[in-house]
Parts: sequence; C-alpha cells; structure tokens
Amino acid sequence: MYSFRNDYSEGAHPKVLQALVDTDLEQTCGYGLDPYCLAAADLIRDLCAAPEADVHFLVGGTQTNLVTIAATLEPYEAVIAAQTGHVNTHETGAIECTGHKVCTAVAPDGKLTPALVEDVLAGHNGTEHMVLPRLVYISDTTEVGTIYTRKELEALRRCCDDHGLFLFLDGARLGSALTAQGNDLDLPALAALTDAFYIGGTKNGALFGEALVLTKPNAHFRWYMKQRGAILAKGRLLGVQFQALLEDGLYFDIARHANAMAIKLRDGIAAMGYPFPVVSPSNQQFPVLPNETIRKLQDMSYGFESDHPVDPDHTCIRLVTSWSTPENAVEDFLQDLSKC
Amino acid sequence: MYSFRNDYSEGAHPKVLQALVDTDLEQTCGYGLDPYCLAAADLIRDLCAAPEADVHFLVGGTQTNLVTIAATLEPYEAVIAAQTGHVNTHETGAIECTGHKVCTAVAPDGKLTPALVEDVLAGHNGTEHMVLPRLVYISDTTEVGTIYTRKELEALRRCCDDHGLFLFLDGARLGSALTAQGNDLDLPALAALTDAFYIGGTKNGALFGEALVLTKPNAHFRWYMKQRGAILAKGRLLGVQFQALLEDGLYFDIARHANAMAIKLRDGIAAMGYPFPVVSPSNQQFPVLPNETIRKLQDMSYGFESDHPVDPDHTCIRLVTSWSTPENAVEDFLQDLSKC
Amino acid sequence: MYSFRNDYSEGAHPKVLQALVDTDLEQTCGYGLDPYCLAAADLIRDLCAAPEADVHFLVGGTQTNLVTIAATLEPYEAVIAAQTGHVNTHETGAIECTGHKVCTAVAPDGKLTPALVEDVLAGHNGTEHMVLPRLVYISDTTEVGTIYTRKELEALRRCCDDHGLFLFLDGARLGSALTAQGNDLDLPALAALTDAFYIGGTKNGALFGEALVLTKPNAHFRWYMKQRGAILAKGRLLGVQFQALLEDGLYFDIARHANAMAIKLRDGIAAMGYPFPVVSPSNQQFPVLPNETIRKLQDMSYGFESDHPVDPDHTCIRLVTSWSTPENAVEDFLQDLSKC
Amino acid sequence: MYSFRNDYSEGAHPKVLQALVDTDLEQTCGYGLDPYCLAAADLIRDLCAAPEADVHFLVGGTQTNLVTIAATLEPYEAVIAAQTGHVNTHETGAIECTGHKVCTAVAPDGKLTPALVEDVLAGHNGTEHMVLPRLVYISDTTEVGTIYTRKELEALRRCCDDHGLFLFLDGARLGSALTAQGNDLDLPALAALTDAFYIGGTKNGALFGEALVLTKPNAHFRWYMKQRGAILAKGRLLGVQFQALLEDGLYFDIARHANAMAIKLRDGIAAMGYPFPVVSPSNQQFPVLPNETIRKLQDMSYGFESDHPVDPDHTCIRLVTSWSTPENAVEDFLQDLSKC
Repeated sequence: MYSFRNDYSEGAHPKVLQALVDTDLEQTCGYGLDPYCLAAADLIRDLCAAPEADVHFLVGGTQTNLVTIAATLEPYEAVIAAQTGHVNTHETGAIECTGHKVCTAVAPDGKLTPALVEDVLAGHNGTEHMVLPRLVYISDTTEVGTIYTRKELEALRRCCDDHGLFLFLDGARLGSALTAQGNDLDLPALAALTDAFYIGGTKNGALFGEALVLTKPNAHFRWYMKQRGAILAKGRLLGVQFQALLEDGLYFDIARHANAMAIKLRDGIAAMGYPFPVVSPSNQQFPVLPNETIRKLQDMSYGFESDHPVDPDHTCIRLVTSWSTPENAVEDFLQDLSKC
Repeated sequence: MYSFRNDYSEGAHPKVLQALVDTDLEQTCGYGLDPYCLAAADLIRDLCAAPEADVHFLVGGTQTNLVTIAATLEPYEAVIAAQTGHVNTHETGAIECTGHKVCTAVAPDGKLTPALVEDVLAGHNGTEHMVLPRLVYISDTTEVGTIYTRKELEALRRCCDDHGLFLFLDGARLGSALTAQGNDLDLPALAALTDAFYIGGTKNGALFGEALVLTKPNAHFRWYMKQRGAILAKGRLLGVQFQALLEDGLYFDIARHANAMAIKLRDGIAAMGYPFPVVSPSNQQFPVLPNETIRKLQDMSYGFESDHPVDPDHTCIRLVTSWSTPENAVEDFLQDLSKC
Repeated sequence: MYSFRNDYSEGAHPKVLQALVDTDLEQTCGYGLDPYCLAAADLIRDLCAAPEADVHFLVGGTQTNLVTIAATLEPYEAVIAAQTGHVNTHETGAIECTGHKVCTAVAPDGKLTPALVEDVLAGHNGTEHMVLPRLVYISDTTEVGTIYTRKELEALRRCCDDHGLFLFLDGARLGSALTAQGNDLDLPALAALTDAFYIGGTKNGALFGEALVLTKPNAHFRWYMKQRGAILAKGRLLGVQFQALLEDGLYFDIARHANAMAIKLRDGIAAMGYPFPVVSPSNQQFPVLPNETIRKLQDMSYGFESDHPVDPDHTCIRLVTSWSTPENAVEDFLQDLSKC
Repeated sequence: MYSFRNDYSEGAHPKVLQALVDTDLEQTCGYGLDPYCLAAADLIRDLCAAPEADVHFLVGGTQTNLVTIAATLEPYEAVIAAQTGHVNTHETGAIECTGHKVCTAVAPDGKLTPALVEDVLAGHNGTEHMVLPRLVYISDTTEVGTIYTRKELEALRRCCDDHGLFLFLDGARLGSALTAQGNDLDLPALAALTDAFYIGGTKNGALFGEALVLTKPNAHFRWYMKQRGAILAKGRLLGVQFQALLEDGLYFDIARHANAMAIKLRDGIAAMGYPFPVVSPSNQQFPVLPNETIRKLQDMSYGFESDHPVDPDHTCIRLVTSWSTPENAVEDFLQDLSKC
C-alpha cells in the first residue's frame, strides 16, 4: 500500500540519478566550486532573469533556513513568521539556536500579509529593550498547502520596502507552488520580489538539495555555510542534480504530476463529502476524516500523518503526493476510502 | 592529468552508487529511521562489538564534529585539541560558534598524548573564572597523515578516565587509518577506547556520509542534529551507502588501495631524495619540493595543495590518494616528477 | 512634579546606602565569596526555610533571567511564558540569544495557569523535530501588576511535576507581590513551590541587585554567571545591600509603602470614573485615560509611561510607585488629575 | 594584615561614594539615559578630545569585553589576543560563548606587536574554511603589569589599518597604565589610536563600572548591551561615579598612588634579591619567592595570589596595590618579608 506520508519517501527521479551515475568518476574540486555547480548557478540565474544573484547549494531545508537567517540578521534582529511557519514549529528551535527570536502572527491559511507583518511591527517599540523584527519568512507552498499569488507577494514586497525588511521565501515545495492551479508566480517574479528564496530539490526529484538564490548577494555567505557545517564536500552532487532538474523543465513537469495526483485525491475525497478546512491547490491535502475511517486506512497499510485532532471523533490528516506517486495508488486509495 | 588534491574529488564507489540506484524507488520513512539505516546501525554495532552503542548518520565531517561537541559539552566546558586539529583550524570557528572554546596543544606529529592533555589541564585552575576542558578531540588519521597505535589510544583513554574527560575521535579518514601499515587498531578497539568516533564515508567510497558511533548513548542526540540542520530528510541514503560499504569489507578494501597508492607515491618521491617532514603511512603524503618543481608539476596540470612554505625556495605540498586513484596516475606522476 | 515612570528612578533606601558607606573601606575577597554575601545567603536560606538552597547575587533582572534559563535548559529545550512575560517582550531577545525558544500563551491577566501550560505542551509532539518546552517562567508581581495566590502557585507546581517542568519565578517586584492585598504567599512557600525564584532588590530599596534562590542547586551556576559577565567583582556590595534589606524586614516594610501609595492612586483614579482593564493590588497601576488628559498631566511634568492605546482617544498608562514615593506626590497627582 | 590580593578588595573612593549619597534621592530616568550619564559621557569625550565618540557605561570588565566583541564582529570573524589576554584565559570562554574564536600569540611580556598580529594572520588563509581574524584585543596595563608606549600603540594602529583590523583596548587598569613610569599615552592618544577602549572604574576608585569609548560609534550598541543583560536599570549610578572620578583628576591621582605603592613594594623586594620575571611599572607586581617564605607570609595573614610555580621550591606571586593601599601596609609587608 502506498505511503502518502511525505514527498521525500523515495530517492531521486531516474534522470537525476542517472546524471550522478554518469559523472561519478570525474574529478572535480570540492565544496561547490566545481563546473557543475557553476553551470547550475548560471542556469538558475538565467531562469530567474537575475544575472546579479548569488546561488548557493545546500543539502536540506532546515539547514538552508538557519544559515540564511543567521547570515542576514544582526544579533538583535528577529524573524517574522506565520505561527504555522516551518522555522517556528518544526525545526527544534534551529533559528533561536542561532540567537534570533521568531515573532509570529496567526494566519489560518498559512500566509503572511502586510497587515499581519505590521501587527508584529506594531507590537515592537523600536527601542533597545525589544528585538527589531527584520526578516519576513514565508513559504510557498505554505505548510498548509496554500500558495501566494503575485499580487500578494507584491504587497508583501511593498510592505518590506516600507519598513526596511528582508523578504525570505522558503521554497522547499516551490515546484508544487509554481505549477499549482491559480499560481501566477514564476522564478523571475520570485527573484524580483524577494531578497532570498530557494528552489527545493529534496521534495521534488533530487536525492537532496536546495538551491538558494540571494538576490542581494552576501559576500561572506560561504563562511556562514562552512561554520554551520553546510558546505558539502562533494558539492558537485548538488550542481549535477539541479542541472538535471532544471535544464529542460523536468523540475516543473514532475511537480505538475505531483499536483495532479493531489488534486485527484482532493476531488475524490471531497466528492465523498469529507471536508477540507483549508483549500490547497498543491501536493499537500488536509482532509478531515472520522477516526474510525483513519484506523481502517492504517490497517490497510496506507501511510499518512495525522495533522491535528478536530474533535474527539475526527482528525485532520495530511496526504502528500510527489513526482513519483503512481496514479493507480491514488485510485486505489480513493476506492478503499470509499469502502470505509 | 590526475588531481591528488583530496580524497573527495570523485563521487561514490560504483557498488555504493549501484545500491542507491537499486533502492531508489522504494518508499521508506524519512530522517534516518528507515530499515536501511536501522540495518546499517546494527551492522556497525556488530562490527564494533558494541551492542549498546548508538549509531547516527550525518552528512559531513564539520557537521558531525560540531553536533557531537555541542551535544556533549556543557556551555562552560571546552575542547582539547592538537593545534593542527581540524576543529581548530579548518572549520571556520564552527565549534566556537556553538559556544565552546578549543584549547590547543602543539603536537608536531598531529597526535595528542596524555602529557599534552595534562599540560592543557594544568593551565586551567578549575575555578569558575576559566573554562573546564572536558572533551579530547583526536583524529585518526591525523591532519598530517599519522595514525594512533593501540598503545597510544589506551594511554589517552586512561588519561581521560583519570581526569573525567570525554574522548572523541574524528574518523573522517578512518578507513585509511585502520588499513595503514603499523596500525593495530580496529573498530572494536575504537568502540572500547573512545566515547564517540565516526567512520568516515565521504573520503572513502560514499557520495557523502559519516557514521557516528556513540559508545555512551545520548538520548537527545537527534534533537541536537535536527537543531543544527543535520538530519537528512532522505536519511536512508546514508544507511544504504554504509551498508554497501561495510557489509562485505569494501570499506577496508578500498582504503587499503588508497594507502597502497600513497605509499607508492611516498616511496617513489623519497627515492628521488625529497624529504618528508612527517612520516605518514596513510593516504595523505607531505613531501617538500622545490618551488620550481612544483610549478612544473602544476603546468602539467597535476592537482595538489600547498600545505606550507618551508623556506623561500621550498614548499611542503599535500598529495592525497583515494579508493579511485589509478595506479598508472601514480606512476605517471612519479615519472613526470623525476623529469623535473 | 513626581515621576511615576518606574520604581528605579531613585537610588537606594538610606539604610541600604548607609550600610555601603559603613563597610566601604573594609577589605574582602571578590566575586561574591565574601562574608557579607555568605551571611546574606544564610539569612535568605533562613527566611525561606530552605537550608539546602543555593543563593546567588546578580546585578539585574535581565541578567538573572538569562543566566538562570541558560543554566537550566538543554539546547533543545524551551521556555513557556505568558505573552506579556518580561523575557518574551522586553529583553531584546536575551533568551533567544542564549539559544532558547520562548513559547508563549495568551494570558490577559499576565498569569500562567496549568491549562495554559498544557496548551503549549499540547502544541509540541515530543519528537526531535520540535523543541521540548521545559521551563515555566512566571513573574510575581506580573508585568500587568497582578499576583499569584498560593493555590494558583500550587496548581502550577503540580502541573510542573506532572510534566517534568522547571518552575522559575521572576521576582523583580517580589516585595510588592508579597505585601499586596490578597497575597497569601511568603518566602518559604516560594522556596517550596518553585525550582528557582529571585528576590528583586533593584526595584525595592537597593542600588541594584537580585538575590536568586535555587532550590535545586546547580553545581556549576557560577560558571554560567562568569561566562555571561554576571559575577560582580566587588560582589560584597550585593551581600551588604541584601543584608540591610532583609535582616529586619525593611524589604517588606518599604514594599508595603509602595503598595499603599499605588492603592491610593488606584482608588483615587477609579473614584473619578476612569477604568482599569486589569485590577492590580500592587505597585503598578494601569488606568485608561483620555489622551487629552494625558497630555495635560505631561504638561504638568508628571512622568509615566504609555502602556498601549485603547482607542483613538484613550490610552492605558502605567503608574509605578516605589519605596520612596511621598504620599503628597500621590495626593498632588490625584488633585491635578481631578482638574483635568 | 593587608591583602594585596587584588585592586577590588575595598569599595569606592570616599568622594565617589559621597557623590552617590548626595544624589541618592533624586529621580532620573533609567538605563543610562539620565543627566549624570550624559554629563559624564560629555566629560569623557572632552578628556579624550573625541567629540564624535560614543560613550557607554557598563558594570564590569568581562561584560564590557564580551558585549564589545559581540557587537563588533561578524559571526565568522575572530579575536587576536596575547595568550595571557584576559579574554583568553580568565573569562570562562565568554567570548567563545558569543560565538567567536580567540586566536592567540605567545607574548612573554603580555603585549601584542605587529609581528605577532601578522603571525596570526599568516596562519589564516582568508578562505571560507577558516575564521577571519578581525579584532585585536590588547590590555593596558597588561595582565602581567606591563604598559604600552605610544610608539608601540601607533605601530599596532598602522598594522590594524594595513589589514583592516579593529583595535580594542581593555582598560580595566587604565588608570594605573596612564600614570605609570614610562607611560607616554593619554586619553586623546587612546581615542585617536584605538577603535574602542575603556576607562576602568572597578579597579580604580568606583564601586563598579567601566566607561567604554567607541571612537567608531555603533548605532545599535545599546541593543547588544540589553540583550546581554548589560544595561544597568539605575544607570545613573555609573554616570555619577565617573563624573566624580574624572571631573577633577581624582582618577589619575589615586592611580598614581596605587603605582607608587607598587613601586615601593617592587623596589623593596628587589633590594632583598628576589627576582621579577617581568618588570612592571604598574600596580601589579610579580616577584618570585621561596615557597617557604610564601607560607610564612600567609601565616601572617598577608593576602596575595599565587601566579604560577617557577620550580618545586619557588613560586611567582602577584601583589596588587590600589588607590586605598596605605603606605604603612607596604612598609609592614616589606619588613615582615625581610624577616622571613
């Protein structure tokens, strides 16, 4: 039975893995300064229409978040995030461990807005007795599967400009976001509207890897990476993978597939009358099911995570699809669910 | 022309890569809790004759060093290391970045001894005005290519026991150490004599990865890993690789090859009369060559690093071999050197 | 015109200052190991009926909070505090700067309850992907002037015992709390019910100083203090002051005066019909006044802080009394307010 | 019997204490923004001929060192200090606790030179794999009692300019340095030649306090202070004391006395034939005495610290004088020593 537990249950897309096989015995210099990383960075700058941007390749999302935030903020500056933000909830205090407070706003759909950002600012008086909120952390897709529109991101950009804030977009699931129904953002828009964002590979076709785009380069970023153990010795593994993913659009093709599978799940489950507290157009779906039904699905060995209890008898679960989710796994799941 | 710059110039040993290919589309849970990691951990416990040990898989050496040290020390405790120790010199202050001082001893052969450790202790008065040195950091092979003997490690263990110190061995090049001429240590000895050590994969056949063995388990070690961005989402990639390396001795076979290539280099260079300040039995060799000769080798596109200048006309260089160094690359180098 | 801005506008109570004058030229050893500190610590243990407790003297509140929390928590553990808690709002991220997250609960009266603590715990799943909330931070009086009853503190203690939590009480304004109307706590109760608390001197009669009582001694607490720059060289200044404050009840007598002045303010203002969102029995009072009235009071040079705007025309202000507030200053203020 | 253990055995100079008494009941605003601190800062700017400098008042030396260094360095930058430097040896890793490495040079007389600084720089390759040494930490007087000459400080300044380094002078014993025989530095020279230095009050007449002069102001320095618990609530206590010390030269008069007492000790002891490994013109003297003699002095209840053993029968001790050392205490000591 299939596991919808997450989008990193499998390895890499075969084409990505083949690229690693093909280049395995070549000798290159280490630490991401090799021709593959340089080429992948050039490719990303091209795709982003951001010739001045710096591109750094890191291994995982928490690592990318903590290094970027530590490299951006002064010690007395803080992050603004949605209460559901990954850096706030699921990184074991990694940001605080670098010395920075995460100030949160309640955002039921997982998305920050200028009003929410300004609420946080209003709660800080600008004196030396309080932190100075300075970096706005958002995720696209968000932790609840929603996506930002261009208009929403433009509004956040203006808000950040008005208040001297740095806008950082966690793109662990950026492939899913940029190919979701209703999306009108693309890489050039992200490069134009954020100060930093990343193209998540781990959750969309790579063995591992996040390609961080700094639209405002930081001359010492690699020092921060090294200091946090975040420079991969055989750095070219990251360049090779991102080249394979991005050179001909594979990254977006497979994300589109993941979304299609998720929408098929969503529509099928909704058709059975189960509610979805938040409408997600992306590869994470959060239906509310009776606990009894959940137990039956688990007995059939379907894998998924419980997100939160809704009432004593119902739980909101999380179903995640990926580039590798077979359509018949979705169909089987829907059929089995309909029988519960 | 071949690069002797380091032992992470290539990708993975073909058998290791094949194991990744073979398992690529399987679904497993994430974060290193999958069957491959569990099996690899069991295998390592068996090989170490350490049934009670905890095994954790991390991506790289600096990451492993900083997480282990941060997880072991109280905020007021410090590391004792040789001045040449990797954590002291080549990790951009990663240990200090976790809040801990590194106290150093001058050790020309890169090896700490009980006398050197006790010198450091003697410089600290045990009061609240000074740090308490508490973790002894050693590397095998050392940063200058030397290895510890069983007798030396036993003496350090006794010293640590006498003073309540934690003994941590950086095994980034452990394969080379355990297969070097003169070595009389093995995995069970390391597990018996240290509190923590790691089996380095990055520099001996893996794409990446270090297998950390905690002979004194730390119940919250995974919290430290996560907090530092050091839990790999697709953790099974580490388990799969270490299983492939260790299940039938491949790890040691290929390390033996790396050493043999290094000894061939060493003996050939020494036969031409070039001196070696430190005698290394392992895969790093440090001959002193005339600068003129070095330039000629570089012109021929041989790759290697300059370690340190010896006098205005001579430089100590570093030559590193690996599991993938072809014998004819060594022979070509020697022949070309003899012509310089 | 008098300043009701805070309770540290003046220096020390004359008796405290005289004790400093009287002992000025004596020679003692430094760093708080002198006879005055030892005697003051003994006196505090006696007053607390806590013969096993450790007592440490620190200079200020933020310093005491950050050292105590850093000394108590493991790196992956977090604080639970009311959203209004001083460590959350007014210490410039001092706790996060030591690496720890502060998890907050909304508590309109500034007081944590077992239910609020358990809400925070319920939001954490106990895995390595989230911090482990472990230290409950409360203040008495709270930041909004309220106080804990014995029953409330006992309930928190039970809650902490049930969940393995450490209970730390910020006593920057403990004198005011323990002498407020409705208080039924005393020093022995605090020592019995908390794991650590402090007797604030800065805001009640001393030039500076907080006496921290650790009912569960931490053998290396002085290392944490020193490492954070929190051991005063002439430590005896702290011992001398606390002895003067505590040896004959001066500490409580002057706190009682501060409270009486505050209640006089409160009753007088309430009699004029101005509302108080939270009822405070202690030396901080938070009436809501028309902005026009506030401007008039400021024009008369009364000093006080604006706490928060209530609506476009009204603001909640903070009035603070101290051991040195003269009764006629209160009477003048009330009379002047009645004219506005 | 007198204690020569340190220069913070007594309280404040009577004039300083009187100033605290005289101002005790005045109301001022808190946190060092009061008229006394403003006036003292102006006075210091005048005395330093540094109208653009920022002056901050902190409570103690370790606090001042750690806040200044944390506020100056980027996370990947390091301190250069003499191995005997206070920040390296006697602050319990306070600098590392803020995340920064301290790189050391062996300087038998406690003084850094351009050559020593450049040796440290030469050991760092400027890549992202090593820290970037960036702040030169020196002390005047040094930890072994020596002082810098103008020529030496000018040479260090040029060295710092050549290499883009920040020069920070720990002036915990600056009074003694600037009044020592052979000194040719003064406050304007220090302000002109360093980027930051402090005028130590704790060890020269104040109850506590260090006046930090930032010749290159840091707009957020108070944020760093607050975050580290280093803003004193009743900040005016610092302003009042420094005004009393500096307004009419008391600071230098009493330092001169301390030095005179030290030189009397030195000359008397030297006349008896006891050696001094380092010649100190300041208020710390380090004679080598037979252990037997030391025991006799201790039996007579003289207080002093053992600095380090010289051989099995001799120990180098430290004798410290202060503004309050009576001449007859010195005479008694010399007489008693002559009898041993």
